[in-house]
Parts: sequence; C-alpha cells; structure tokens
Amino acid sequence: MSREKQGREEIAGGRRMARRDGLAVLGPAPLFVLVEPQMGENIGATARGMLNFGLSGLRLVNPRDGWPNEKAGAMAAGASIVIDQTRVFESTAAALAGCQYVLATTARPREALLPVLEPAAAAAEMKQRIGRGETCAVLFGGERAGLSNEDVMRADGIVSIPVNPAFASLNLAQAALIVAYEWAKADGRAAPASELDIAIPAPREDFERFFDHLVAELDKAGYFFPEAKRANMERNLKVAFMRAGLTEGEVRSLRGVIKALASQRGGADK
Amino acid sequence: MSREKQGREEIAGGRRMARRDGLAVLGPAPLFVLVEPQMGENIGATARGMLNFGLSGLRLVNPRDGWPNEKAGAMAAGASIVIDQTRVFESTAAALAGCQYVLATTARPREALLPVLEPAAAAAEMKQRIGRGETCAVLFGGERAGLSNEDVMRADGIVSIPVNPAFASLNLAQAALIVAYEWAKADGRAAPASELDIAIPAPREDFERFFDHLVAELDKAGYFFPEAKRANMERNLKVAFMRAGLTEGEVRSLRGVIKALASQRGGADK
Repeated sequence: MSREKQGREEIAGGRRMARRDGLAVLGPAPLFVLVEPQMGENIGATARGMLNFGLSGLRLVNPRDGWPNEKAGAMAAGASIVIDQTRVFESTAAALAGCQYVLATTARPREALLPVLEPAAAAAEMKQRIGRGETCAVLFGGERAGLSNEDVMRADGIVSIPVNPAFASLNLAQAALIVAYEWAKADGRAAPASELDIAIPAPREDFERFFDHLVAELDKAGYFFPEAKRANMERNLKVAFMRAGLTEGEVRSLRGVIKALASQRGGADK
Repeated sequence: MSREKQGREEIAGGRRMARRDGLAVLGPAPLFVLVEPQMGENIGATARGMLNFGLSGLRLVNPRDGWPNEKAGAMAAGASIVIDQTRVFESTAAALAGCQYVLATTARPREALLPVLEPAAAAAEMKQRIGRGETCAVLFGGERAGLSNEDVMRADGIVSIPVNPAFASLNLAQAALIVAYEWAKADGRAAPASELDIAIPAPREDFERFFDHLVAELDKAGYFFPEAKRANMERNLKVAFMRAGLTEGEVRSLRGVIKALASQRGGADK
C-alpha cells in the first residue's frame, strides 16, 4: 500500500491512527524539555499531546523512574515515535545545548525580570524564530516542584497559561497540550479538519418564488387572520426563512414540504 | 487535614492551590455535555480541565458506569465542586433542555451543512451569546464512538480542533481542556458590544417539538418517499431550519404555519 493511501485510510477510519510515518509531515517545531518529571504516564501523555499538534522533539532531565519507562510507552500509545526518539540528559543546561530561545512554563510568574507571554504569544514568537532557523525549547517542571528558580533563569521568557485563579492545578501533560496546541495554531500547519463546502444561498428569485408559494397556500388555509396583521405576519415569517440562508436544494425541499402539507386536502377529497 | 495541606497534595506540590470556593469567582459559561462517557477518569479529568478555565456546568448522558463514579471523583480531586453538581440525563435531548446554542465537537466534520468552527471562534461566538443571556452547551462524544450523527444534528455548529492529520487521537478530556482554554481566553476579553437587539433562539426543546410536528405532518402526507431516503431528507430539512436560529416567536409562527397548511384537509372535508 502506498504511503499516501495508507494515511488516507487511517484517517478516514476515525480519529486516532498514528501513521508510522506520522513525523514525515512535520516541519521544524519547538523542543519540549521536561525537568525531573515523575510519572511515566505524564511523560507519555505529553508525547501524545505533542504529536497531536505536530511536535516531536522531547527531552527529559533526570526522569525520576529512569528511562525508558514502560508506563510512558503505554500511555504514549501511537505516539511511540516521539518516545523512541526522546533524549535524556543529566542537567537542564545539557538538555538546552544548541537552543537559541528558551521559554519556561510556570503558573506563577516569578519576580524575575523576564518577559511573561501567554501561550499564543509564545507560539507566535517561536514561530518567527524557527522561521529564521533558530532552535527553540519550552521547559516544563516536574509534577512535584515545578521549575526551580535556577531553571527559570535559564529561559529568555516565561509562558504563563491563564487559569482560573481559584483552581490553577494544570498538570504537566495538560500544560504541554495547551502550549502544543498554540504552537499548531501559530504554525498553521495543523489543517482544520474540515473540507466542507460552505452552502451557497439560492438565487434571490428562487427564494422569492418559494416564499410566494408559501404565502399563497397559507392564504388558502386562512392563516393570515385578522387581515390587519397580514403584513407583519408575512414579514416575520420571511425574516425567519431569510436568516437561514437557504440553498437552492433547500428551497426546492421546502417547496416540496409546502406541497406535501397542502396536498393533504387533495388526499381528503379523494 | 487542613484545607491548605489538602490543596497542596491535590496539586502535587506544583503550581497553585485548589480553593473550596473555586466557583465563587466564576461568571456564566458554557455547559459541557458528555454523551455516553465511559471512563470515570476521563469525566474527572474533564471536570478538572473545566474548573481550571472557569467552567463548572457539567452534564452527562448515560455514563457507562453509572453515577456517581468513584474514579471520576478521585481524578477530579480539587474540582469535586464540579463533580458534585454534575447532572445526569437519559438522552442528549433532555441534557440540552433550555439550551439555545449548541456546538458538537467532532474530529471529522460530517457532510452535514453545519458551520464548522475552530475552538477560538466557537468560544468567541459563545461569549457573545452568553453575554446576551443565552445558554450555550458543547457536546462531547464518548471515548469509543464519539458523537452519533443524530447527536451532531442537534447542534447549531461543529467545533473541530485542528490536529496533526497523521495523529489525531485527542481524548475526551484533552478536547474538553482545549475548548475550555479557548473559552477562558474569550471570556477574558470584553464582549464586543452589539448595538442590535439580536434575536434569542428558542430553547432547544421547543425547536425539537416544532420539528417533530413538521415531520409528523409530512409523514401523514407521504412526503418521505422512498423510505430509504427518509433519514437524509429529514436531516437536510432540519439543518435548513436550524441555521435560521429561530426565536421562540418564530417557532410558534411556524407551528401555526404547519397547522394551517395541514388543516386544509379539515377545511376541504367541511
């Protein structure tokens, strides 16, 4: 089966479906660096969220349970291509080697004099820089302690996700998902899943003929009563139908509806 | 255990603290409706993601493992205030009672002629409507099958999250997190002031009753022929009427129209 065909079928089959070559379509994107992550499940979920939104470069600094991690692999499921390429480092400094622009995610911006960006602005900034050939990385702290001040100070800026101040318990994988999502939006590569043809409204005269037909049948049925209210009643009905922006096919269907409803008289006469 | 200590542990030392009064600061927001969710963990994670971004109204349609669900409660942790107020319904229609604007999340937009919105646009639309006093809801399908076509057809539009087409496996809680996140972003901006009195759509159940009435009368008139085409014909008609965003008054008028047209039989009999 050709690669393209295979991709098509998998996607047509539903939502999921990692293609083995899921990375082939990905362009350059930020690296995600998890500093002292604890639970394999969260590493795996982060990998999934990354691949969902077109990122694949994952680096770990001293994962608590070592590496490779079975639970990470299980949770990553179809995103094992991210897990398989994950690199492990002994210090944040080592993990950031070669990076030109680094952002640190924290829920509470520190007193540090770093610029604070919301995820969308952070993604836009990275998109620009990556376009210029820079390597960008986003640091995420472990579940327990978040990022140390020392690690935050390695960054050029802070990404802060605006959460409900009364309940700000985003976990590692959720924070990564949102940054990845904003990256995909900024990157513009994640195609909107839709290929819908937008409905084209029927020509005006078709609509008018439909509406005249409706009014004529309603007249026969004595709908416009009292006569003084006719103009208002007609106008209100027309506005409702106009708002729908009916297509040609829909106008045809509705004329069929009128005919069917009105023709009951014929049926009763027989 | 002190409240503060509990909060700390819930969040695993990480970022901030869940407060018991997490809801006190929340304004009106969309409802999230999970249709036949399977895993309690995902319901709990959805509740957390909602509260993180200032939403609290959660409704379930036929959760597989019944309700309440221990695993949902455990996963929701500090968001138990959402879980405690979660309401359970036996049908999607019942869960949507009172809602004026409904969006369905699906990874693959159907052929239905519903507008397809990315999450940010969906959030902006809901923000406007909620500002006008409308009740908005977002439908999410269960883990296994997503939303049925029938449920999608109850919606006024589709929310589609743009994912990497080669790996589109967002789970329920992740999809909910992203919609909630975009809601928080939209909510944080002042609603664009509208000078117009915009018509407020009829409650969903009114619309459904109108449409059922129409179908019943069309049935009597033998409109749905051949039978094999019925589903399509019904769906197309429904989409056309839904797009109009009919007000309560308009729904009433249209029921009058159906009655008038159909009652001609009675008139002819006289």
